[in-house]
Amino acid sequence: MSILIEEAAPRDGLQNEARVLSVQERIQLIEALVDCGVPRIQVGSFVNPRAVPQMADTEGVVRGLRKRKGVVYRALVFNAKGLKRAAACGLDHVAVFVSASETHSLRNSGCDVAEALRRAESVVREAKAGGIVVQAGVMNAFGCRFEGPIPESRVLRVAAVLAEAGADELCLADTAGCANPRQTERLVETFLKTFSVPLSLHLHDTFGFGLANVYAAWKLGVTRFDGSCGGLGGCPFIPEAAGNIATEDLVHLFHAMGVPTGIDLEKLTVVRGFLETIVQRNLSGRYGRTGCRL
Amino acid sequence: MSILIEEAAPRDGLQNEARVLSVQERIQLIEALVDCGVPRIQVGSFVNPRAVPQMADTEGVVRGLRKRKGVVYRALVFNAKGLKRAAACGLDHVAVFVSASETHSLRNSGCDVAEALRRAESVVREAKAGGIVVQAGVMNAFGCRFEGPIPESRVLRVAAVLAEAGADELCLADTAGCANPRQTERLVETFLKTFSVPLSLHLHDTFGFGLANVYAAWKLGVTRFDGSCGGLGGCPFIPEAAGNIATEDLVHLFHAMGVPTGIDLEKLTVVRGFLETIVQRNLSGRYGRTGCRL
Repeated sequence: MSILIEEAAPRDGLQNEARVLSVQERIQLIEALVDCGVPRIQVGSFVNPRAVPQMADTEGVVRGLRKRKGVVYRALVFNAKGLKRAAACGLDHVAVFVSASETHSLRNSGCDVAEALRRAESVVREAKAGGIVVQAGVMNAFGCRFEGPIPESRVLRVAAVLAEAGADELCLADTAGCANPRQTERLVETFLKTFSVPLSLHLHDTFGFGLANVYAAWKLGVTRFDGSCGGLGGCPFIPEAAGNIATEDLVHLFHAMGVPTGIDLEKLTVVRGFLETIVQRNLSGRYGRTGCRL
Repeated sequence: MSILIEEAAPRDGLQNEARVLSVQERIQLIEALVDCGVPRIQVGSFVNPRAVPQMADTEGVVRGLRKRKGVVYRALVFNAKGLKRAAACGLDHVAVFVSASETHSLRNSGCDVAEALRRAESVVREAKAGGIVVQAGVMNAFGCRFEGPIPESRVLRVAAVLAEAGADELCLADTAGCANPRQTERLVETFLKTFSVPLSLHLHDTFGFGLANVYAAWKLGVTRFDGSCGGLGGCPFIPEAAGNIATEDLVHLFHAMGVPTGIDLEKLTVVRGFLETIVQRNLSGRYGRTGCRL
């Protein structure tokens, strides 16, 4: 079965960069990535621009995009206000995330897990009522930089509320990049048994376990993965969290295993170069850096 | 089951470095690594010092070492002469490798696969007759930088000759770092069904698939893996081949999964720092670079 990769660089990636891109640059990046064959892409988030200036005027980005048919353009929202902004500019896919860590929830969303979950649940219900497709996810599902291990029961409880509210897809996010493949296998198995909606994984690569985690989940049937071109990203509220797994390495892994993604790896390498120019540093990710291209 | 990690930095690592270490420095590195709890270590190779000056006077290294009981000190040999040198300095573990790629065999061993196999077979028989433990392996078992995919039948044929000759352990080496986990799973499954001696894996990390390959093999029951502190290494005869998987990341992976290795990860991080000073550049490997140590 073909893999559905979601490109996170224009959202999770850019929000961690010191340089704030113009709306036009963000549009150019998104269109270039879609042109590589990326089937799903995160275009931005509807958050307070004072908290995350990199994501200011995501409306302008959404309105300015030449949208390609069949491609999912998704933005992150945290509350009713964000959902209203997304709907107002005609976006029909949103994502809403709740952290399973109390400390991270306070830093990331300004409220405890229970309150963040109430907001997210209401976002899911309102979005569904308005005909918007919702991916709902659990951040720090595999552990927290501040709190260490997170009980699986809490991750399941959060996900159950979001699924019950009508989420079209669940996502497990390893926000701090501390998942290992054995743990990934266990949590994914439990999720596949418990929930009937599709599951996606959003993995970071702090310790280099990212692709091993992808493989463990894929072996169980997961086909939806986030990646970020050049491994851009991190979390503005978690020190030393590395970026997402690099989309080019994710694509390369599946192509090497004979599994199609629909993404043109050589074109993606060009976009990665463009991104390196923008952020003015070497990005992580292996494919395109190594001369060996088997 | 506990994992048996073999440290390759003093052999596969150093042979790729421009700077030639003194015998005393090599001894210091080996002893520091053994002091981290490394149960098996590659101390050097008995090759022509004109071809690989970094490995000159491996006799001096072996003789100078304060050996710790229970630790396997192993050197690489290619022919009868190398075996004689290893035996003469009292080494009781050797490794002999044959490349499954004709092009790589010519560059690495100066002869074709058939001739390299004849030499290796005779090394295995002579070593066994002399009471020396032999690990015998297949280089480029997962593909070749020059020839692309390598037929599994050829890898099996080479291994069968070495097993028949009496090898105590077989090793599959991904010399160019082009294995993917699906392929690793298939080849390892075949090996475990075909051969009764233990199997070890020597993986490089060119594309960042190394730990995913480790996980795939471990799931099938493989417990013997090579690593190189700091990801040092490559292959002097393969352009752009990255180093081995970093021992610290390999150890971290297993510890994170709750599987013991007997290695002290914090001490290993200190040795990695020492290695960075020696080679005067940043090494790869994640653990110890990232602040996050879950």
